Amino acid sequence: MSDRVWEMSIEQRESLIKAAFEAKQQTYSPYSKFPVGAALMAADGRIFKGANIENASYGGTICAERTAIVKAVSEGTRSFVALAVVTDVPSTISPCGMCRQVIREFCAQDMPILLIPGDYPKPPGHDSEGKPGIIAGGIKETSIGELLPDSFGPEHLDLPRTGGGK
Amino acid sequence: MSDRVWEMSIEQRESLIKAAFEAKQQTYSPYSKFPVGAALMAADGRIFKGANIENASYGGTICAERTAIVKAVSEGTRSFVALAVVTDVPSTISPCGMCRQVIREFCAQDMPILLIPGDYPKPPGHDSEGKPGIIAGGIKETSIGELLPDSFGPEHLDLPRTGGGK
Amino acid sequence: MSDRVWEMSIEQRESLIKAAFEAKQQTYSPYSKFPVGAALMAADGRIFKGANIENASYGGTICAERTAIVKAVSEGTRSFVALAVVTDVPSTISPCGMCRQVIREFCAQDMPILLIPGDYPKPPGHDSEGKPGIIAGGIKETSIGELLPDSFGPEHLDLPRTGGGK
Amino acid sequence: MSDRVWEMSIEQRESLIKAAFEAKQQTYSPYSKFPVGAALMAADGRIFKGANIENASYGGTICAERTAIVKAVSEGTRSFVALAVVTDVPSTISPCGMCRQVIREFCAQDMPILLIPGDYPKPPGHDSEGKPGIIAGGIKETSIGELLPDSFGPEHLDLPRTGGGK
Ligand SMILES: [Zn+2]
Ligand SMILES: [Zn+2]
Ligand SMILES: [Zn+2]
Ligand SMILES: [Zn+2]
Repeated sequence: MSDRVWEMSIEQRESLIKAAFEAKQQTYSPYSKFPVGAALMAADGRIFKGANIENASYGGTICAERTAIVKAVSEGTRSFVALAVVTDVPSTISPCGMCRQVIREFCAQDMPILLIPGDYPKPPGHDSEGKPGIIAGGIKETSIGELLPDSFGPEHLDLPRTGGGK
Repeated sequence: MSDRVWEMSIEQRESLIKAAFEAKQQTYSPYSKFPVGAALMAADGRIFKGANIENASYGGTICAERTAIVKAVSEGTRSFVALAVVTDVPSTISPCGMCRQVIREFCAQDMPILLIPGDYPKPPGHDSEGKPGIIAGGIKETSIGELLPDSFGPEHLDLPRTGGGK
Repeated sequence: MSDRVWEMSIEQRESLIKAAFEAKQQTYSPYSKFPVGAALMAADGRIFKGANIENASYGGTICAERTAIVKAVSEGTRSFVALAVVTDVPSTISPCGMCRQVIREFCAQDMPILLIPGDYPKPPGHDSEGKPGIIAGGIKETSIGELLPDSFGPEHLDLPRTGGGK
Repeated sequence: MSDRVWEMSIEQRESLIKAAFEAKQQTYSPYSKFPVGAALMAADGRIFKGANIENASYGGTICAERTAIVKAVSEGTRSFVALAVVTDVPSTISPCGMCRQVIREFCAQDMPILLIPGDYPKPPGHDSEGKPGIIAGGIKETSIGELLPDSFGPEHLDLPRTGGGK
């Protein structure tokens, strides 16, 4: 068991969620019309906000989660304690595989990832209540360990190689 | 429960594994020096081979799995029954998040994904024997449902949006 | 001046253009609804066809030109003599920057890149006639040297570094 | 001729160059070992700093220029007046095609892009002096119009389509 304490205070959690909603307002998503906001909390309490930034050549699109991460890393921060993601959809939406891979490079396996419903907070008695991982207000709490199991990461590039195989 | 029968014949499985090793020989990986081969079997039995094709601007790299998929799709095939992936590493190596996202677009949640150790077939009594998902020869059998749980996909782009949130 | 002879026969040129139109039919572009086809001729005369293959996470999209290139390279071919690109738009459409970067890795600076109007062949007297680079039928002939001037490529990664700067 | 005045003051130019060098210090480039820094000046004088952030799955890499852009856009800024890019190489290094495509989405064709040599300022009489585009200190001044001629952009997605072609 880890000694690491992921517990954020209620205030910190609310700040992070609020930041994700604010981040979403800066979306540049004229092609998908699917705004996404992400907020990444660093170990020192700073919050980095990201939105999805699309491109006419769709492959040039950078998602909200990756925007938040490159922003933080380029500011010299590589130690993170939580990520929150929100869209305009009332259900919780999970990061894409590309973002999961970039999260994997910088975040601990069990760092909390909070998927926020677009109509947060959901009232008591809402549809998803009691489902696995659903916490207060309809948030789904997960982690990169759960979202990208058996992941590929930096350590694999250093593994000894065999010329072998048939 | 699905009626779909994923069972390949032993001959088909061996052909697919052989194709993944062959595919790896065409790698263009001067930067990572980490060759990867992938082989994708279509519903009609055709096998599409992919290798990782890197770029001096690293972000331009396209992995073996994605190469195999775009190859097949661009040939008019969108119905797949199995994917095999192999590297030069003696342990099994999992697809990156980007490839998982692209696999997600085209393959069924439970389509077999075979991760082949670089020294396949491992002899009886090898290290990973008996571990979860490990089958004969040291292969790890998995699926995109397992590798990209709670995934983001085409259906999410069509969800009703709320202007809401706080 | 180069000794290399880029001249294709008229038959080869027509085959390549025809292949680009065929390639476009295999597009998977439910998000942009902007089908693109590409055809890449190898030194041995083989033609590799690519279409744009999009993803629900837009950044996972791989364009037609890149599909054609990874297809060819993964088949063991790295020597190319011409690329043709076509869309459904009546004017010629240029490759995006990402594709230019991938073309740069594998193709000569002066290899012909033929941008085909979607209504090819345009009749004599059409609008773009006489414009720079426009040849018979409304095709625009260009090259990666023209499309990606002062490019970044493999040789730059090997340049000596300075710890310097202020 | 445009009314836009791209002229930065000498102080602004020096601030931007200094910011690019500072940005480079935050590089996460364990794979290429090729640090890059970028600094983007907004119309309101704010400077956004980006570094290249690589990934174990090389295709997940985001360059310095793109980091700077998504950072600025996600902060609500989409109007830019200059970009500076620097590496550890004593010669000037150009943005990759992917970055050019993302720059294209947000920056004017003639916005100054300053490529800074890693050993800036070069002394009078240096090698590249007098070469096209080279200005004081060995800087190469260019623009996205020059770096990505005949580019693909947002306006092309709206062009009328023909079902046509042969
Ligand atoms: Zn994403
Ligand atoms: Zn991959
Ligand atoms: Zn492209
Ligand atoms: Zn770049």
